[in-house]
Amino acid sequence: MSKHTNVTVTAFDWVPDFAQGNVRDFRVRWALEEAGIPYKSKVLKQGEQKSPDYLSLQPFGQVPVFSEDGLTLFESGAILLHIAKDCPALMPSDEAAKARVTSWVFAALNSLEHYLQSLAEIDFFHKGEDWTKERRPQVLESIKTALGRVSTFLSDRKYLEGDRFTAGDLMMASVLRIARHTDLVTSDPVLGPYLKRCQERPAFERAIKAQMADFTGKPPKGFS
Amino acid sequence: MSKHTNVTVTAFDWVPDFAQGNVRDFRVRWALEEAGIPYKSKVLKQGEQKSPDYLSLQPFGQVPVFSEDGLTLFESGAILLHIAKDCPALMPSDEAAKARVTSWVFAALNSLEHYLQSLAEIDFFHKGEDWTKERRPQVLESIKTALGRVSTFLSDRKYLEGDRFTAGDLMMASVLRIARHTDLVTSDPVLGPYLKRCQERPAFERAIKAQMADFTGKPPKGFS
Repeated sequence: MSKHTNVTVTAFDWVPDFAQGNVRDFRVRWALEEAGIPYKSKVLKQGEQKSPDYLSLQPFGQVPVFSEDGLTLFESGAILLHIAKDCPALMPSDEAAKARVTSWVFAALNSLEHYLQSLAEIDFFHKGEDWTKERRPQVLESIKTALGRVSTFLSDRKYLEGDRFTAGDLMMASVLRIARHTDLVTSDPVLGPYLKRCQERPAFERAIKAQMADFTGKPPKGFS
Repeated sequence: MSKHTNVTVTAFDWVPDFAQGNVRDFRVRWALEEAGIPYKSKVLKQGEQKSPDYLSLQPFGQVPVFSEDGLTLFESGAILLHIAKDCPALMPSDEAAKARVTSWVFAALNSLEHYLQSLAEIDFFHKGEDWTKERRPQVLESIKTALGRVSTFLSDRKYLEGDRFTAGDLMMASVLRIARHTDLVTSDPVLGPYLKRCQERPAFERAIKAQMADFTGKPPKGFS
């Protein structure tokens, strides 16, 4: 029986098209699906994330907040490690392997996401602004270097830890998806098939469907 | 007796002035000092971090790599959690508090560092480039929003988890230090004293001294 009872995950009722299927509650839904832990989503209208009540749970006004009996967590990375720590489907039991998987979760979030997030800011949030013309090629260069490192490491491995999928792959694939409006990942002979392999997992597909199904709201004023 | 034996942490023998005292091995040295775990640094000449041997341990060619008997880890966040998990000086024993501390470690790295890192890129790595004129005010705005959230959350607390310093504060303070060339943190009536409090810890001071003492090398060609 699962140690995790009454699990809820916050999500938005609307986000712009480019973010649909990749809002950060997705990472947690995917982990819960891999682990076979039932959960409910708690859907916020855009704007609700700025309420004092919500900010007391998630000081940055983001999703997801994860709660279960006795525990509240924020930050997708922290939640993923919490779910993974007693879940053989996401975390090996060997201490040395566990350490490497944890390293990869942080690496995806801290050594890779920064560059991909910088590209998303240019391509979505500041599209067409003058500064992006000079800056975009620099960001692409940083991304190519970082992706090249992951590609070299993976080489002919199926997953980061060898033959089995882990929490490290879950976070890595989720972060790689930030570049899905480009061919940066798909054009790489190692990373393209790797991401495809991760995305073909039934748990991935269930998690995407669940996130998409919660987008029942309308854009707030000023968005379209 | 410590569970951690034969601990080594990689570091550089030279970095530019602006980075001295804030290279990421510093975060790990600080944690080890708080935990009272003896360690040795393994100092790399600039360039060595790109060798195939080193990349097999740290795929992004960064410091630190942490090793102890039986275990190798990379990413400062992963190493911090590894040290903290059996260290009362860094991690509360209560499960709910532990979850919040872990959330804060990720929040510092993933919800705050991205913006501060963007500012560091503008102010140090791309100083004077045309694009930075338009972009810098936007980045400052994002930083002010994020810092405001942390400031509001902290309010009259001494540390993020109340009266006691934890791994969450260690990472938060380390990330706030990225803005130390500005008054973004020091001018905030909550964050300024908070950072000062963290930096006055004897373990912090020992860790800074240890990092500085390892800068015995010369800049590689092309740097000055």
